[in-house]
Amino acid sequence: MTGPYIAVVGGGDRLPAAQRRSAEAVGRAVAEAGAVLVCGGLGGVMEAACRGAHAGGGLTVGILPGRERGEANPHVDVAIPTGLGEARNALVVRCADAVVALAGEFGTLSEIALALQAGIPVVGLDTWELGRGGGPLPVDPVVRAGDPARAVALAVELARTARAAR
Amino acid sequence: MTGPYIAVVGGGDRLPAAQRRSAEAVGRAVAEAGAVLVCGGLGGVMEAACRGAHAGGGLTVGILPGRERGEANPHVDVAIPTGLGEARNALVVRCADAVVALAGEFGTLSEIALALQAGIPVVGLDTWELGRGGGPLPVDPVVRAGDPARAVALAVELARTARAAR
Amino acid sequence: MTGPYIAVVGGGDRLPAAQRRSAEAVGRAVAEAGAVLVCGGLGGVMEAACRGAHAGGGLTVGILPGRERGEANPHVDVAIPTGLGEARNALVVRCADAVVALAGEFGTLSEIALALQAGIPVVGLDTWELGRGGGPLPVDPVVRAGDPARAVALAVELARTARAAR
Amino acid sequence: MTGPYIAVVGGGDRLPAAQRRSAEAVGRAVAEAGAVLVCGGLGGVMEAACRGAHAGGGLTVGILPGRERGEANPHVDVAIPTGLGEARNALVVRCADAVVALAGEFGTLSEIALALQAGIPVVGLDTWELGRGGGPLPVDPVVRAGDPARAVALAVELARTARAAR
Repeated sequence: MTGPYIAVVGGGDRLPAAQRRSAEAVGRAVAEAGAVLVCGGLGGVMEAACRGAHAGGGLTVGILPGRERGEANPHVDVAIPTGLGEARNALVVRCADAVVALAGEFGTLSEIALALQAGIPVVGLDTWELGRGGGPLPVDPVVRAGDPARAVALAVELARTARAAR
Repeated sequence: MTGPYIAVVGGGDRLPAAQRRSAEAVGRAVAEAGAVLVCGGLGGVMEAACRGAHAGGGLTVGILPGRERGEANPHVDVAIPTGLGEARNALVVRCADAVVALAGEFGTLSEIALALQAGIPVVGLDTWELGRGGGPLPVDPVVRAGDPARAVALAVELARTARAAR
Repeated sequence: MTGPYIAVVGGGDRLPAAQRRSAEAVGRAVAEAGAVLVCGGLGGVMEAACRGAHAGGGLTVGILPGRERGEANPHVDVAIPTGLGEARNALVVRCADAVVALAGEFGTLSEIALALQAGIPVVGLDTWELGRGGGPLPVDPVVRAGDPARAVALAVELARTARAAR
Repeated sequence: MTGPYIAVVGGGDRLPAAQRRSAEAVGRAVAEAGAVLVCGGLGGVMEAACRGAHAGGGLTVGILPGRERGEANPHVDVAIPTGLGEARNALVVRCADAVVALAGEFGTLSEIALALQAGIPVVGLDTWELGRGGGPLPVDPVVRAGDPARAVALAVELARTARAAR
């Protein structure tokens, strides 16, 4: 696939309705931008984003922590069971040209951090905020977006720029 | 994708013409069986098999040792840069419901062994033979096939049986 | 070794003198508590902590991102070259019964997050602060310590409790 | 540790008495050569080799497939729980300057193959034989040894040569 690969990371648990709609809108926008959606392949944000990508006619890839393809959510097209446990978080991120982080727990935070460590741009929607010494960082390394459409537009733009810079 | 995932493993170097034709025929047969072709994403057997799968209208997945998507051969649809080096051999195998091994060097031998260790069926075409104490094993753990069509038919059949047994 | 394994995580770059002294004091206290010191094996906080552990008569383990044992700092006793790149961050954390995080950049943040995801206790010394929605979390998942001795005492205590709870 | 790291690979199941004595003798010789013994940390050949290394006053490292340190055999000094499943086979091998393979099943075969792929010398004691086209390879890539003392002497020698060549 020639489009960029955009990873969507976020919590795997059952979502409040508003977050589910956001994740679906992110997935749909990724598909409509002609990008491949990569994720951890499980439920919650991952499942909602894949459902949205399918509604938009896109392709979805799930990089699973366990060994069974059957643990993928039903909207994953290409399921990669790794058997690596949460060490697969690094693979989700490496596979992406940019990351959209939506809410999420510690696993999501690790993916944000691994992406930033690897120089992969991260766009955040209502997600972790990073600080030092009692306040936020002087420059936020996560690009904040106000809504799903804007988040994906930024991610696609940053993916193109990051690629060109290599 | 609902079809089985068949990994095609073999050497990454330039191939003699007969092996290249075999690998292409394997890839084409995988696609025509409705299966997803998984491989290590590089050249040689991997590239020829992906080319064949495309000729048969199939989907190809490349699980790469390095960190750059650009190292995938041009017939890989979904390229997963892992950055794991040859530790990614275990992931190629885990991702498959059955493996077809074609010729190959030590990397291919490791993939055959990792598949057998994980209980994933392996069909061999002109590939490694395993022995102990100066002779072949009493029962060959690799199912031998005489030609590409037969190799893929066996792999698809074994993939279905292995799945049903879980 | 029967003592707990304490991971010390932090930045790999050259350290300000105060942080270097803190990291050395952490390493020394880990050794004096009879614990094995685990780290990423490189420079900066990792090297200073290993130096301190040696001064305290302890054993140090370095889980390296690259493939060459020679990239370990000179105070690593057991060097494990993984070739996994930053995916090795998950291994540093999994190897530990508790983690002490000292300052650090995005790699350190990923290790804090991976530990918290895996339920491994994290003690922080002047390190990342985590927030949501413009403020810190209501309950800080990182146990804050005011000085190296206190950080290690807390980590050893939490390691014992976490083990007993399994 | 400044000595070379020698990996001892072989089956994890209960051993016939003769193989257990061989594995113990290999471990003891590794220790007496001043080398660090690396293994997969479980039972069978791994446990017997670690027991032998302890009898010889050596240090043992176990790189475990699971997440719990407790799965290590009682003669492992430094236990690294990876949670990577059999993908950890690649790490056992990468960690070594040379490999001694003793009998073993498919996991051992994968470690032999991964070592050969990575250019790490392998000495075999009554282990897998590799062939192509109905016969053994024209040149055996595994250096065969007739007894444990000779196997370890060869491995230490090859480790020194391989290191010097880098």
